[in-house]
Amino acid sequence: MHVIADLCLIPIGVGVSVSNEVAACERVLAAAGLKTALHAYGTNIEGEWDEVFAAIKRCHEVVHGMGVPRISSSLRFGTRIDRSQTMDDKVRSVQQKLGGESR
Amino acid sequence: MHVIADLCLIPIGVGVSVSNEVAACERVLAAAGLKTALHAYGTNIEGEWDEVFAAIKRCHEVVHGMGVPRISSSLRFGTRIDRSQTMDDKVRSVQQKLGGESR
Amino acid sequence: MHVIADLCLIPIGVGVSVSNEVAACERVLAAAGLKTALHAYGTNIEGEWDEVFAAIKRCHEVVHGMGVPRISSSLRFGTRIDRSQTMDDKVRSVQQKLGGESR
Amino acid sequence: MHVIADLCLIPIGVGVSVSNEVAACERVLAAAGLKTALHAYGTNIEGEWDEVFAAIKRCHEVVHGMGVPRISSSLRFGTRIDRSQTMDDKVRSVQQKLGGESR
Repeated sequence: MHVIADLCLIPIGVGVSVSNEVAACERVLAAAGLKTALHAYGTNIEGEWDEVFAAIKRCHEVVHGMGVPRISSSLRFGTRIDRSQTMDDKVRSVQQKLGGESR
Repeated sequence: MHVIADLCLIPIGVGVSVSNEVAACERVLAAAGLKTALHAYGTNIEGEWDEVFAAIKRCHEVVHGMGVPRISSSLRFGTRIDRSQTMDDKVRSVQQKLGGESR
Repeated sequence: MHVIADLCLIPIGVGVSVSNEVAACERVLAAAGLKTALHAYGTNIEGEWDEVFAAIKRCHEVVHGMGVPRISSSLRFGTRIDRSQTMDDKVRSVQQKLGGESR
Repeated sequence: MHVIADLCLIPIGVGVSVSNEVAACERVLAAAGLKTALHAYGTNIEGEWDEVFAAIKRCHEVVHGMGVPRISSSLRFGTRIDRSQTMDDKVRSVQQKLGGESR
């Protein structure tokens, strides 16, 4: 089962900056060989279900290993069985509908 | 790794009611032996990471098996290594702070 | 426009416990006269759009006023124009479908 | 109060494709003069609180106006009072920490 996900991991109890922990997660996802795209409020992740969720578990483990006592993540994830679709397909599909407009 | 999660699964492309699919997920989570609590915008789930996420995967599989072509879920999930905490602990902790108030 | 929402507010940079801030939000929502239901990973809120979102803004203001430098919230919110529906309706609709089962 | 948000709006009861509705929301956000960035599972939005949330309300109104009977949105939104921060700042902060790596 293919999944497109969007992960926003929040370390709690370690200070106001979270970029070290987010960068650690980016490394975990890259090491897992997953296709990702970082944005301002999370990271898009695309791949097979088991690989995506194993990497997300590893993110929690790695961030706890950095000394973070508590983590709260928010995740969106979508699956479909009618046809295959990539992250790029999703963005392109919207952009095509906006294409003739001066944005 | 213990996890407290909150799942909101949305079937797409099948009509305006979602309660059949949500009920199917409740059955999946109960069959997995997980502690759950249904609320008006999702379901709290508590358990070991691998069991919780295996059940969530099974929810997507079962709902697709009902003929739903596309699913989008939103999930919150928290882990902590400083101490153990249950769903009941989390609610009680807030309620105690509100306890003296006439709500 | 009527809305059913689910708010999970996370204070960042102030320590590992979040129950004081969550309790403060419960007070804000109660003071706004909104129907709410606290659960282990957020709070259901029901009401008219403008009142619900004014109260959510007030939650951020009050929590910052407690000295919290940074807040990240996750919110689900649903509207429908085909019929009216309350939080209780949503839960009951699922429970009825599970009613004959020995859970 | 400045806010960085991330909106994922899901039309329910109208079919398996959601790109028309997402495109309509992009137009609403652009018309509101807000800074946005579309990604594969939502749209980053940056601006003053009242303007951002007025535009999000308008998204629900416009999508219902397209004949969608039910909408469920998931939103992340963050505020901070310790310093100002843009969407670009957030991404750059993580990328700098990954900068020396061959990704």
